[in-house]
Amino acid sequence: MSSEIHRSSVAAQAPDHGLIGRLVGRLGVQGLLTDASDKAPFEASARHGRGVARAVVRPASTEELAWVVQELVGADASFVVQGAATGLVGAATPSDRGTQWVVSTQRLRNRLEIDPVNRSAIVAAGYRLSDVNRAAAEHGLTFPIDLGADPSIGGMVATNTGGSRLIRYGGVRENVLAVAGVLANPPGARVGSTHGLRKNNIGLDWTQLMTGTFGAFGVVTHATLKLHPVQRQTATALAAVESAEMAMELLCSFEGALGEFVSAFEGMSGNALNAAVKHLPSVAPPFQNAPPYAVLLEVSSAVSKAAGLDLESILLGWLEAQVERAMILDAVVDKPERLWRIRHAISESVQALGKLVAFDVAVSRSRFAAFRARAIELIAAEVASALVCDFGHLGDGGMHLNIVVPPGTRVDAIAELRAKLYQAVVEEFDGSFSAEHGIGPYNQAFYRRFTDQPTRALAGALHVQLDPYGQLGNVRLD
Amino acid sequence: MSSEIHRSSVAAQAPDHGLIGRLVGRLGVQGLLTDASDKAPFEASARHGRGVARAVVRPASTEELAWVVQELVGADASFVVQGAATGLVGAATPSDRGTQWVVSTQRLRNRLEIDPVNRSAIVAAGYRLSDVNRAAAEHGLTFPIDLGADPSIGGMVATNTGGSRLIRYGGVRENVLAVAGVLANPPGARVGSTHGLRKNNIGLDWTQLMTGTFGAFGVVTHATLKLHPVQRQTATALAAVESAEMAMELLCSFEGALGEFVSAFEGMSGNALNAAVKHLPSVAPPFQNAPPYAVLLEVSSAVSKAAGLDLESILLGWLEAQVERAMILDAVVDKPERLWRIRHAISESVQALGKLVAFDVAVSRSRFAAFRARAIELIAAEVASALVCDFGHLGDGGMHLNIVVPPGTRVDAIAELRAKLYQAVVEEFDGSFSAEHGIGPYNQAFYRRFTDQPTRALAGALHVQLDPYGQLGNVRLD
Repeated sequence: MSSEIHRSSVAAQAPDHGLIGRLVGRLGVQGLLTDASDKAPFEASARHGRGVARAVVRPASTEELAWVVQELVGADASFVVQGAATGLVGAATPSDRGTQWVVSTQRLRNRLEIDPVNRSAIVAAGYRLSDVNRAAAEHGLTFPIDLGADPSIGGMVATNTGGSRLIRYGGVRENVLAVAGVLANPPGARVGSTHGLRKNNIGLDWTQLMTGTFGAFGVVTHATLKLHPVQRQTATALAAVESAEMAMELLCSFEGALGEFVSAFEGMSGNALNAAVKHLPSVAPPFQNAPPYAVLLEVSSAVSKAAGLDLESILLGWLEAQVERAMILDAVVDKPERLWRIRHAISESVQALGKLVAFDVAVSRSRFAAFRARAIELIAAEVASALVCDFGHLGDGGMHLNIVVPPGTRVDAIAELRAKLYQAVVEEFDGSFSAEHGIGPYNQAFYRRFTDQPTRALAGALHVQLDPYGQLGNVRLD
Repeated sequence: MSSEIHRSSVAAQAPDHGLIGRLVGRLGVQGLLTDASDKAPFEASARHGRGVARAVVRPASTEELAWVVQELVGADASFVVQGAATGLVGAATPSDRGTQWVVSTQRLRNRLEIDPVNRSAIVAAGYRLSDVNRAAAEHGLTFPIDLGADPSIGGMVATNTGGSRLIRYGGVRENVLAVAGVLANPPGARVGSTHGLRKNNIGLDWTQLMTGTFGAFGVVTHATLKLHPVQRQTATALAAVESAEMAMELLCSFEGALGEFVSAFEGMSGNALNAAVKHLPSVAPPFQNAPPYAVLLEVSSAVSKAAGLDLESILLGWLEAQVERAMILDAVVDKPERLWRIRHAISESVQALGKLVAFDVAVSRSRFAAFRARAIELIAAEVASALVCDFGHLGDGGMHLNIVVPPGTRVDAIAELRAKLYQAVVEEFDGSFSAEHGIGPYNQAFYRRFTDQPTRALAGALHVQLDPYGQLGNVRLD
């Protein structure tokens, strides 16, 4: 993009009554993208279609961001805030009408401070998870939210991301000490803080209101994150079990015996395991016969072997006892990176098999197996010959119920299945229809259907207070 | 209390236009206390004076509670919800005007269900922490919030209690999966749920709004709590160090080496240690010479010794290395119950020395020692010859800055010290003036002083939505 081309496109935008000009004037040409090709990366959604941005605004400091919000609100503009655009429900994608502005936090990288004594980090919204971990590692620390994507910190807070090690560390909510942000009302007002307090029990907690509300109530500018010591030992095994029921029983035994060492317990169906192994030609099948269900177990510790802790031998001892008790059919102990490679290949390998339909649900662990059976039954009834390749974070009851549907499956059949499956998880199993991915335009209708009136009224009161003219974001929680 | 006496006192309450009669009619005489002697236990505050209740209402089910709230709101009554009345800021104590009703959750004990597979418990608000732990222990589980008091579960949620093991497990917020409650507006409306989900990322989280808001926004009826495996090994030591600075350095080394085993790191000044040891005639002084500062260190594990983990020898190895590095002056390894007895005796022993003035503050760990020095300086300047007996949860930056003031110290000198100390912790050290105890009438004025306008406006919008006529509770967050 040359600045000449950019300026000519600016000149063409008369209806904004000078807004474009003011934005370029203060932010410079790096701060405003109006060309179709420049805007394109900010209009794409990670999974569900794309939108059209009126323009992309990229403030590079909190002051610029606050000013941008003030300008946009003052100009009656509607805008959506976007981090790394890795979300899966379209909450950061502009609508397709071409009227919504994108405020990108990509350049909000003015602060990344590690405090090793407090085990915390103050991070500007535009940094990515990998940036934080790189900086933390220099101090023997880590931010242990383990995800397939590499989202921005602002997006992680807004989405309250979970991931594969939630069972040990919790999700973002359990690991964010403070959030600083900017409001749409009063326009550009600064709220919250960057304190590193682990306890601050003084009433309405702005941090909690900003965590997991998908940008509906304000813009995250900084988060103060709790860091943890890096792990010095990790031992992993892949265990074949007879069923998801047995996997859950195994989980209870695993936690009872290995307690605080447990850092992951990832289940996968035989189909999912098969798909992954076929997809990775360099990986030998871990079991001679594909099992009905398999589990990747991980224990880890910040304590070194030299201090007197041998995690691999503790895991081996436990596994042998489980084989003796016939709790597991077979198990492979291998290097973490080799076993996780299989687990991480599932999504891609399933997508390679055909048209993927995905559900991100969760239930109480005690109802996991029963719900899974019910879901498989529903899928068979609605889309005959669909291939169910589910995997999940069993430790927290999360299930990525991915299915491959036959070519030519009707769109309305899939929509019908989705409605029935969500209804079953929420109404029959007291579960969640969006465990990790949050709420966006993509699943807003289900939010309306499954959320009770008092909660929506409460969210409505917050919308009225924080965004009286409905200009902020594309998620409505009322 | 005989029911005759009770009835005659009911008859004397004409101005309620039949409300008393309706309450007795539905709840029975156990459900309504109007005699002065029956009301007295519900009018006392754990630390700061007492109030006068119009009457005490004790519903025994969620339905009764919802109906009571509806009746009270309909009768324009003002009421405060009370659990076990162990709070320290007066949030559950009625005002002294005699017009406020107390709604006690004491009899709300209709549900205590442990789900061992999900590692969770659904608990009615009136159960106490000890009740939950007794029930959980039968399944090898525990709710690991460790407190001096034995509060009700409803009160723990409303206060977001922390305690001595927050460093390992977090506080209530990190361990509450769901909250069910009743609103004052719409009067008696039920909200929330009792689901046992570890992930349910669907927008405004009612659980977070009810946690740590001191009953301002609704009444907790049930909480679903995360349980953890019980610890099978615990090793503790009391270490003498040169200063609070050294204690913080020691904490970093402790966490770096012992990682997930760390379950407590409690600091105490030499004065606090001395007071406790003198108060316990059966306990021999742990050190020949009283150290300037001491630390109770605890490591614990759910993994048994038989599985190949010897926690005591790991702790000993680490302690020896610290003595060699001159990080600690001396250390005593002893049974947990013996060392914790010293730690738990501090509050009582300090109170026995004279008039106690207490501050419950927190700062970032990296500023703990500097703040402590500043606080000691402030105390000396404001109340000469005060004895500073501070102790604290160093792992989370929490400090119980307890001081004993000389007889005859003027009340306004103490008030002046309080104002200056809170100002220092908040404005100079970016800390908290109420780390664990929350906000109540006792410290409401400081809340107003230190809370920013956007946060108060937001709380105001919630008050308007949830309690438009200001009838619920005696904490205002706007």
